[in-house]
Amino acid sequence: MPSLSDILRMKKIPDKHFMTLAILAAKKGISQGQTPFGACIVKNEKVVITAHNVVWKNTDITAHAEIHAIRLACQKLKTIDLSGCVIYSTCEPCPMCFSACHWARIRKIVHGTFIRDAHKIGFNELSVSNYTLKSKGKSSVQILGGFMRKENQLLFKEWSECKRKRAY
Amino acid sequence: MPSLSDILRMKKIPDKHFMTLAILAAKKGISQGQTPFGACIVKNEKVVITAHNVVWKNTDITAHAEIHAIRLACQKLKTIDLSGCVIYSTCEPCPMCFSACHWARIRKIVHGTFIRDAHKIGFNELSVSNYTLKSKGKSSVQILGGFMRKENQLLFKEWSECKRKRAY
Repeated sequence: MPSLSDILRMKKIPDKHFMTLAILAAKKGISQGQTPFGACIVKNEKVVITAHNVVWKNTDITAHAEIHAIRLACQKLKTIDLSGCVIYSTCEPCPMCFSACHWARIRKIVHGTFIRDAHKIGFNELSVSNYTLKSKGKSSVQILGGFMRKENQLLFKEWSECKRKRAY
Repeated sequence: MPSLSDILRMKKIPDKHFMTLAILAAKKGISQGQTPFGACIVKNEKVVITAHNVVWKNTDITAHAEIHAIRLACQKLKTIDLSGCVIYSTCEPCPMCFSACHWARIRKIVHGTFIRDAHKIGFNELSVSNYTLKSKGKSSVQILGGFMRKENQLLFKEWSECKRKRAY
């Protein structure tokens, strides 16, 4: 029986397929005691990398899902230039991760929930939206927010119900 | 004969001493073909780590001096919480690095040159100052900018004269 992500790919709904991969990465992270954030980087409609937040696992406050995915993508593609790539992120990238996308010259960010949603469940977010940072910083990164928001909100619910959850 | 940084330490000018260590790290980076940025993280007036930008060396677009120093400090102190630490940075941290300082709960940023200076020599900076991001994001990180600016500007001059310089 094909998995949900297989079905989406077969039905040629690539955005849903790639976001589903990011969600699955986040779920894997939650099951390992990590925080509920996942990302998937895609180039030419092909997956480069999926990753989840590994801040606790790696004892590295910078290892958010997007930063971690960008690092891995740089290693895999052997370049610091991710032009043409799209990043699917279960939550709106924080200003650190948005800026990393800008530096990597990622073409587009597609995200599910919003920074304010992550703030509500206890993360020490800087309350600056991607649109604000893009506008003030004159970045050419494209942004599509609120994609599959309901499905992504379920990640926060799943994490909130974990006994060993730890925000930061 | 004592080095400049020894003299500064002996004369109890700790800010100058620590910034000098950041400058020396940047100079080491330049000599290795890296970009002209260095950082030094200090806790209780003791150096935790010094680091320079290793974006080219590590093929990692996120490996700015500050991010790299924060990662190393997390490893060394075995915590993601750098409360009480001060980071000395040769240039104003970009929005990615400022946000990393916020997440790490660093107490204070002391920087030399400004984002606009790095932009002028060819870096694809997001033109958002630390003060703007602190104010908009409601961060408690303290900022002291323009510290030893002239000495730090010399790093840009030194790098600009390198044959193998590469901005990004």
